[in-house]
Amino acid sequence: MKVILDFSVIPMGVGVSVSKYVAACEKVLQDAGLKTKLHAYGTNVEGEWDEVFAAVKRCHEVVHELGAPRIATNIRVGTRTDREQTMEDKIHSVESKLAN
Amino acid sequence: MKVILDFSVIPMGVGVSVSKYVAACEKVLQDAGLKTKLHAYGTNVEGEWDEVFAAVKRCHEVVHELGAPRIATNIRVGTRTDREQTMEDKIHSVESKLAN
Amino acid sequence: MKVILDFSVIPMGVGVSVSKYVAACEKVLQDAGLKTKLHAYGTNVEGEWDEVFAAVKRCHEVVHELGAPRIATNIRVGTRTDREQTMEDKIHSVESKLAN
Amino acid sequence: MKVILDFSVIPMGVGVSVSKYVAACEKVLQDAGLKTKLHAYGTNVEGEWDEVFAAVKRCHEVVHELGAPRIATNIRVGTRTDREQTMEDKIHSVESKLAN
Repeated sequence: MKVILDFSVIPMGVGVSVSKYVAACEKVLQDAGLKTKLHAYGTNVEGEWDEVFAAVKRCHEVVHELGAPRIATNIRVGTRTDREQTMEDKIHSVESKLAN
Repeated sequence: MKVILDFSVIPMGVGVSVSKYVAACEKVLQDAGLKTKLHAYGTNVEGEWDEVFAAVKRCHEVVHELGAPRIATNIRVGTRTDREQTMEDKIHSVESKLAN
Repeated sequence: MKVILDFSVIPMGVGVSVSKYVAACEKVLQDAGLKTKLHAYGTNVEGEWDEVFAAVKRCHEVVHELGAPRIATNIRVGTRTDREQTMEDKIHSVESKLAN
Repeated sequence: MKVILDFSVIPMGVGVSVSKYVAACEKVLQDAGLKTKLHAYGTNVEGEWDEVFAAVKRCHEVVHELGAPRIATNIRVGTRTDREQTMEDKIHSVESKLAN
């Protein structure tokens, strides 16, 4: 089952600057060989359900190892059985309608 | 790694009434023996990371099998290494402060 | 436009214990006279769009006033034009299907 | 109060193809003169709380007008009082740590 997922990791108990933890999480996704795209309030990821969620779990482990005692993550995950769709397809689909 | 998770499953392409699909999802959580609590905009679940996320994946599979060609799910997931905390602990902690 | 909303407020930069802030937020909702229900990973609120979102904004203001320099909130909001639906309706609709 | 917000609008009861509705929503944000950035699972928006949330409300109105009887939206919203931060700042902050 293929997913397009978007998630935002919030480390708690480590002050207001959290980019170090978010970067560690990006590194996890890259090491997993997943297709990702960072934006200003999260990261898009595309791949097989098990691989993508294994990476999200690894993120939690790594952020805890870096010293964050508590983590709150928000995830949006989409699956579809009617057809294949990539992250680029989704953006292109909206942009082509905007152009008309 | 223990998690407290909350998720809201939205089947797409099946009309406006989606309670049949949400109920199927609740059944998945019950069959998995997970501690859960339904509310008006999602379901709280408590358990080990792997078991809880396996149930979320099974929900997607079951909702697709019931005929929904597309699903969009929103998940909040919290982990902490500083101490154990149950769903009841979280609610009690807020309510005790409200009572003061 | 009536909404059923669910939100989870995460104060950042104030340590791992955040129930004090969540309780202040509950107080804001109560003072606004809104119908609400606290659960283990957020709060359900029902009401008119403008009143409900004014309360969410007031929450941010109050949590900042209490000392949190940064806040990350996750909101699920639903509106429908086909029929009226309360928070209780939503839960009952799922539970009646589970009972069959 | 300045916000960085990310939201994903899901029209229900209109089939599986929803890009027409998302595009209408993007148009609302553009007409409001807000700084936005579309990604594969939502849209980043930056601005004053009241203006940004007025645009989110207008999105719901427009998507209903286009024929969607039900809408489920997920919003992440961040505010901070310690310093100014733009959407670009957030991305740059993570990317600079990744580069090291």
